[in-house]
Amino acid sequence: MYDVVIIGSGPAGLSASIYAKRAGLTAITLEANPMSGGQVLNTYEVDNYPGLPGINGFELGMKFREHADKLGCEFQNASVLSVQKSVEAEMKAAAYEKEEEKGFVIHTDQGELRSKTVLAAMGASHAKLGVPGEEELSGMGVSYCATCDGAFFRGKTVAVVGGGDVAVEDAVFLARSCEKVYLIHRRDELRAAAVLQREVKELPNVEILWDTVVEKINGEEQVQSIDIRNVKTQRKNSLPVAGVFIAVGIIPASGMMRELVKCDQRGYVLAGEDCAASMPGVFAAGDVRKKQLRQIVTAVADGANAVTSILEYLSSERV
Amino acid sequence: MYDVVIIGSGPAGLSASIYAKRAGLTAITLEANPMSGGQVLNTYEVDNYPGLPGINGFELGMKFREHADKLGCEFQNASVLSVQKSVEAEMKAAAYEKEEEKGFVIHTDQGELRSKTVLAAMGASHAKLGVPGEEELSGMGVSYCATCDGAFFRGKTVAVVGGGDVAVEDAVFLARSCEKVYLIHRRDELRAAAVLQREVKELPNVEILWDTVVEKINGEEQVQSIDIRNVKTQRKNSLPVAGVFIAVGIIPASGMMRELVKCDQRGYVLAGEDCAASMPGVFAAGDVRKKQLRQIVTAVADGANAVTSILEYLSSERV
Repeated sequence: MYDVVIIGSGPAGLSASIYAKRAGLTAITLEANPMSGGQVLNTYEVDNYPGLPGINGFELGMKFREHADKLGCEFQNASVLSVQKSVEAEMKAAAYEKEEEKGFVIHTDQGELRSKTVLAAMGASHAKLGVPGEEELSGMGVSYCATCDGAFFRGKTVAVVGGGDVAVEDAVFLARSCEKVYLIHRRDELRAAAVLQREVKELPNVEILWDTVVEKINGEEQVQSIDIRNVKTQRKNSLPVAGVFIAVGIIPASGMMRELVKCDQRGYVLAGEDCAASMPGVFAAGDVRKKQLRQIVTAVADGANAVTSILEYLSSERV
Repeated sequence: MYDVVIIGSGPAGLSASIYAKRAGLTAITLEANPMSGGQVLNTYEVDNYPGLPGINGFELGMKFREHADKLGCEFQNASVLSVQKSVEAEMKAAAYEKEEEKGFVIHTDQGELRSKTVLAAMGASHAKLGVPGEEELSGMGVSYCATCDGAFFRGKTVAVVGGGDVAVEDAVFLARSCEKVYLIHRRDELRAAAVLQREVKELPNVEILWDTVVEKINGEEQVQSIDIRNVKTQRKNSLPVAGVFIAVGIIPASGMMRELVKCDQRGYVLAGEDCAASMPGVFAAGDVRKKQLRQIVTAVADGANAVTSILEYLSSERV
């Protein structure tokens, strides 16, 4: 019976494993991928994790894992299939007329684990465009995060693909430092909030290309241009850009937890800064949590906050 | 007219300066001390900032500052005396019947600065016992943060000084990994919450020493013992301990902001995870903010969250 099973080994999960170990908890971190680090692994350069300027994402992921290894944190390669309140815990609660009894069962492809608490740190993934050049040039001009990578394109021309809040926010954000920003949207109106739409339309260096899709991203070692097509006129064009920011959706990896805890419409686990989810004993940290800003710094903070809340939960008796 | 004036150059302020620079904001960070880093500077070893295991606190502070310097962030040595809404902003708001107009004046010992927003990142300091040996052995067994330093005392005997929530929480936290914990309190009852008191009293390896004060901390290079005195019997004693955790109060450095924004009784600026304080345009990040956990990771997260909120505020027009 672990004090906590941490699901996911991105920055949030690794930070939680470090804090849990230092707090003397028995903890295990489950990772579905063969390597720790989460989305950071696929980031070419990270320049906003204070103390390690301009570090390569892969290297940062390794550093996080080495930190946890140095402290003796326990890891297991396993995909979590489902998480449930344990039957014993429910029976015990009923028998002793307690509001709650601690205990979860975590079903994985490697067997079953038991734990007093569960920390959901499965992260999220960015929806892909699925066009030629996208994967090959990822991290070499193709980015899924303007806050993370925008600063590398100062004074350059870039494209943002999408029409929702994030796409428009990214265009506004990039317009501050880029020479020109194309906002490319496949429809003839944006889905973003009205106030954002008004804002982006007022910016002199943002040009919105309506009814337009990206068909190909071109470049060698670095993005040089994109092939676009107007879906109404079918006219094709090539646009010289140094970067392409793809903002067509984020998919939180919360699938196996959605029956256990409350999530929002898009699948983010509802939890505040203390990371406590709707079911007592379940916590959520990092990109899978509903929050304002998904960054490495906010993920590692979540890991620490979650462990603090877990310590509090473990020392509480609910009668 | 700056987009943001950041007051304080600990982890929260430095993270904010990095995020502000990368977002293309005009920002300046004011530091009262000759060196950046805040409380981190005086920490002997930091082992819970993911990616940099076991780093010396001074070195970590330097790394944070170098990161900001590398990006070209602007700094100024100045003590802030007061922060006010600018008269022009108030007149303009009245003249145009707007709810609000952006603009603050920051008065410092080096002159006046003008800014659209203000980020309060002044941090906090720990109240001292004021006994011989405390300062000399700080970072060498004397600590003001169990979450930060507790792990260095695994299997050892330590003392916690204080009787409030933090002292009792520290004792409970340390009891998980230390062989024995003395909780030393000058009165005959604890101030901490009842549930915490119950919990600490049940722990077999915590001994509460009532009516007791610490008179001296002894050791060379490392704490070895403390001299204590019972204030009722006046009996003196010496206690062999490897560490002394002092939890007699934290003082947020919010003095110059207390007339501008709402603070709690203890002086912490009231602001949520988005770091927005009660007055529009004022934000608070790091230890000066009312929050669950004051750590380097939560401070750097605050810096990033604050800048995101500042960007949103700057692009909003309040009519």
